[in-house]
Amino acid sequence: MPNNRPIGIFDSGVGGLTVLKEIKRLMPQEDIIYLGDTARVPYGTRSEETVKRYAFECVDFLLSRDVKVLVIACNTASAIALEDIKRVVTIPTVGVIEPGAVAAVGITKNRKVGVIGTEGTIRSLAYDRAIRAIDASVSVASAACPLFVPLVEEGWADTIVAELTAGIYLGGFREIGIDTLVLGCTHYPLLKRVIQKVMGPEVNLVDSAIETAKAVRAILEQGGLFREGQGGALKVNVTDSIDRFRAVGERFLKAEIDYIDKVALNKNWRSNEN
Amino acid sequence: MPNNRPIGIFDSGVGGLTVLKEIKRLMPQEDIIYLGDTARVPYGTRSEETVKRYAFECVDFLLSRDVKVLVIACNTASAIALEDIKRVVTIPTVGVIEPGAVAAVGITKNRKVGVIGTEGTIRSLAYDRAIRAIDASVSVASAACPLFVPLVEEGWADTIVAELTAGIYLGGFREIGIDTLVLGCTHYPLLKRVIQKVMGPEVNLVDSAIETAKAVRAILEQGGLFREGQGGALKVNVTDSIDRFRAVGERFLKAEIDYIDKVALNKNWRSNEN
Repeated sequence: MPNNRPIGIFDSGVGGLTVLKEIKRLMPQEDIIYLGDTARVPYGTRSEETVKRYAFECVDFLLSRDVKVLVIACNTASAIALEDIKRVVTIPTVGVIEPGAVAAVGITKNRKVGVIGTEGTIRSLAYDRAIRAIDASVSVASAACPLFVPLVEEGWADTIVAELTAGIYLGGFREIGIDTLVLGCTHYPLLKRVIQKVMGPEVNLVDSAIETAKAVRAILEQGGLFREGQGGALKVNVTDSIDRFRAVGERFLKAEIDYIDKVALNKNWRSNEN
Repeated sequence: MPNNRPIGIFDSGVGGLTVLKEIKRLMPQEDIIYLGDTARVPYGTRSEETVKRYAFECVDFLLSRDVKVLVIACNTASAIALEDIKRVVTIPTVGVIEPGAVAAVGITKNRKVGVIGTEGTIRSLAYDRAIRAIDASVSVASAACPLFVPLVEEGWADTIVAELTAGIYLGGFREIGIDTLVLGCTHYPLLKRVIQKVMGPEVNLVDSAIETAKAVRAILEQGGLFREGQGGALKVNVTDSIDRFRAVGERFLKAEIDYIDKVALNKNWRSNEN
């Protein structure tokens, strides 16, 4: 029996669009509701308590839209709030950490894996725990790269400034000799070229967005939850300016966004629907 | 008759500490209450509507602390919300735009002034309006520099990455031949060395933090509002993690912060005081 309810995805901002893009590529028939909490982005430098509060408000919003599966397309929120969210939500819920961790353990040959992400993600040790839970013999090195997100949002991903910055952040990994690097932030796929150049061609890059899309497909497949029909609809919701999101978002999605709505996330957000 | 109530200062985050530092330097006897809205920083990339809402919540908080003067130590909030705030507040209120504009007009000789700031500040044209209102014969060129704030917060103000970034952002000003550049963001004083190096020694840099402190002193002087006594107290309030603020904040202030409290800004913030 098919299920025609939408897939719900949220992120602190535009970054989760890299996950949305891969989900659309794998499952073009699905309806998708995306929420970007752009009035409070970034989550990566905020405290655990604040990230949890914001994440639960995003979950509330998507549940009110009757989604069939919940995708936390934000590494910081996945790292900090996924377990708490899973405890209270009754629909399947997927974060971006676990799929990336599984892929990294599957790919590494020398059992030395690197992880890069925001301050919040790295400080949470969520990737370390996820990878060691799958295979305790894998050693994990990690580094926060706070300038990567603003560099991507500025459209400077392919500049010498990005390359120098990557050289500084990633230098330690080259000394350790990792053979696999997890891009533990949804913005980082846009820096793939520069990161691969700095790390060298022999290092595998794990793109959490692609791995998460595969995990979502597996859940829908196992539950018989695929939507019937062709070309699903996409509705994007943001908590701040639509114009800025459209400009940056279309660069992430490499496609036009037809439907964007501005919503408020709190006890009063229902008023936006009236 | 002296006035022993505190000076109230707010900013979206740590940046306003550069203004606080100058106010303390000029008026060490004053008590100061600082509010950094770190749970929602940065304001610079958000819409006008959102910035106004956040700014008014900050003002509410400071008014509840019975401050004698209100300093909006955030260029984005000054640019977007100062006029609205002045309309409803009964105590003297100072933003960071006007003092910088006055200083720039006073210093420039060739009547070509440059302004740098966040996207929000530059898009608002607040400096252009303020400068032209003082002297319409001065021409104003401006540029948004979104990567400067994250570079400063990462502690990279004196690196080659900051210098390259400054070179890209400021190149246009050199072609125009400005003789004065307004640092229209409270983070930018930490980039003075790099900006001066890129612009050359003949260009005057206007530090809004210093000019704003002078404006506050003038208001207290005119109103006979100085506090009596020695060494005033400093209370810092933030809306997110105290630890992170302390680490970054002490770099801005070049001093230790003894008192930091975490508060919530909304209808419920009063509960924090109980």
